[in-house]
Amino acid sequence: MTDTLPTHDDVRRAADRIRAVATVTPLIESPLLNEEFGGRLLIKCEMLQRTGSFKFRGAYNRISMIPEAERENGVVAFSSGNHAQGVACAAQMLGVKAAIVMPKDAPTLKVENTRAYGAEVLLYDRFGESRDEIATRISRERGSILVKPFDDPGIIAGQGTIGLEIAQQAMTLGAAPDAVLAGCSGGGLITGIALGLSDQLPKTEIYSVEPAAFDDMARSLKSGKHEKNDPAARSICDALLVQTPGDITFAIAKQRLKGGLAVTDAEVKKAMALAFRHFKVVCEPGGAVGIAAVMAGKVPIKGRTVVVVTSGGNVDPALFREALASA
Amino acid sequence: MTDTLPTHDDVRRAADRIRAVATVTPLIESPLLNEEFGGRLLIKCEMLQRTGSFKFRGAYNRISMIPEAERENGVVAFSSGNHAQGVACAAQMLGVKAAIVMPKDAPTLKVENTRAYGAEVLLYDRFGESRDEIATRISRERGSILVKPFDDPGIIAGQGTIGLEIAQQAMTLGAAPDAVLAGCSGGGLITGIALGLSDQLPKTEIYSVEPAAFDDMARSLKSGKHEKNDPAARSICDALLVQTPGDITFAIAKQRLKGGLAVTDAEVKKAMALAFRHFKVVCEPGGAVGIAAVMAGKVPIKGRTVVVVTSGGNVDPALFREALASA
Repeated sequence: MTDTLPTHDDVRRAADRIRAVATVTPLIESPLLNEEFGGRLLIKCEMLQRTGSFKFRGAYNRISMIPEAERENGVVAFSSGNHAQGVACAAQMLGVKAAIVMPKDAPTLKVENTRAYGAEVLLYDRFGESRDEIATRISRERGSILVKPFDDPGIIAGQGTIGLEIAQQAMTLGAAPDAVLAGCSGGGLITGIALGLSDQLPKTEIYSVEPAAFDDMARSLKSGKHEKNDPAARSICDALLVQTPGDITFAIAKQRLKGGLAVTDAEVKKAMALAFRHFKVVCEPGGAVGIAAVMAGKVPIKGRTVVVVTSGGNVDPALFREALASA
Repeated sequence: MTDTLPTHDDVRRAADRIRAVATVTPLIESPLLNEEFGGRLLIKCEMLQRTGSFKFRGAYNRISMIPEAERENGVVAFSSGNHAQGVACAAQMLGVKAAIVMPKDAPTLKVENTRAYGAEVLLYDRFGESRDEIATRISRERGSILVKPFDDPGIIAGQGTIGLEIAQQAMTLGAAPDAVLAGCSGGGLITGIALGLSDQLPKTEIYSVEPAAFDDMARSLKSGKHEKNDPAARSICDALLVQTPGDITFAIAKQRLKGGLAVTDAEVKKAMALAFRHFKVVCEPGGAVGIAAVMAGKVPIKGRTVVVVTSGGNVDPALFREALASA
């Protein structure tokens, strides 16, 4: 397996590929909040990324790597929504057709936007059918190239460009991150970031954060083997419901992650409200898990500097209103 | 009067003063929204500025210009909220005491934050008392230096650093702005931006945007003299309720502005919801007037590039929820 693992150099190459099209999202902090914490919290605003989440980075990098001759039958992807938009947008920009398999209960906003980027959307039942099988079948029937959501070196390297930016921006701010946290579903984001940081910040602790009932990465890191979630589990974090870590992502996670954290839906809503109040940004539930972990004291922040990747902002207004009301 | 007007060079000097402490806020766009408009809308995200609004720029620049020997009696300011936070935060960073005169009906968030930055807050009745008089009296009694909200060359030059950044960032994005819009209360922001842009983008049209019942700048630009608003007028745009343009700001506005636009509270709420959906940022009402003007077709965007300064994000959750629900 290790011979297929992406490296820091792959992240650097990804950065070159996406430079002209991806937003260098800001790394910001709130002096008042820092005072409350007695430490320094920096958030990396990936909701400001093209398509409203970090997923554009990996998708654009991966599709860019497809040789011209293999692009004519398009790409296919399965996604709860953010990867869908990332692939649809990147494919459109690169002139490639895209078909996206999405769960029927994905947020309306994510489905609508995916269509608006010109992609064909195929809906399936998240808890009854296998999206992998549907996408694999389409790939076979049409000759389309499958753009996996996380377990792919090109995807991981693309997400890893966030790590490069964090290292650079933290230096500009005179901040030395003790820990970096990011949400984890299949693990493409957090392991990419680990690779991206490994050159300039090799000693920074890296933690995955998952919804409480979907903490397969946290448990897998403890047991050393792929753990799965209870299929009956539910969470408002629609972006973080993958059942088990990927093979490539888990191999990197075992090497690089300090550990895995988990947060409840109630903690997530409070984090969404905090991001509204102190940072003036819109976090979707899955984008707020890192802040939730800090607020709940799951990593120490007193006297330390913690960077949290707020990974996306694609949330329906009704849920956002609920989060503001409940906080 | 003209010999006291700030210049482009004052803006450059302000940029040097605030460089190490102010956030270079991102200039972002939404491909989907651009497609809907048939043009290019870029928003300058000043809600991500320190203290949640652009006001920190002017306040920090102005207080930095006070000679060391004159700082011991502190500063005093009057403000509906954002200038209050800007002055309080800048004063704290520069080790200067601050007293802030704020209206009793200012958003709770703005009052709380101003106190949190260590400032003394004095509340008054916005529609019954004169904040200028209260602040002037305190200045006289205590020997504090009055940091005006807009009609001061140092304040205007500080806000103007936004114009420098827009020119630079638009170039990076390959965008040539046909028009730049920003909210207008006393006029410090829009005239500062006009000065900031004058070197690199001298031909870009610049428009002030005001709440419909507070369009004193728009009417003053038409009549050529200071017009006032009806004292009975009300708007949800708590940041934009000044009664008439400043002397210095109006002198610059007459030279540089193409015109003044006005929007209704209903249009503002829709703009707040649009910023939530497409840009994943939190606009307070006064921060959304520029987007509202574009949505309402008050400046043409089809086939053009329009830059809107979204000036702040300090809004109470209840009003934000209402805006999302009404859109």
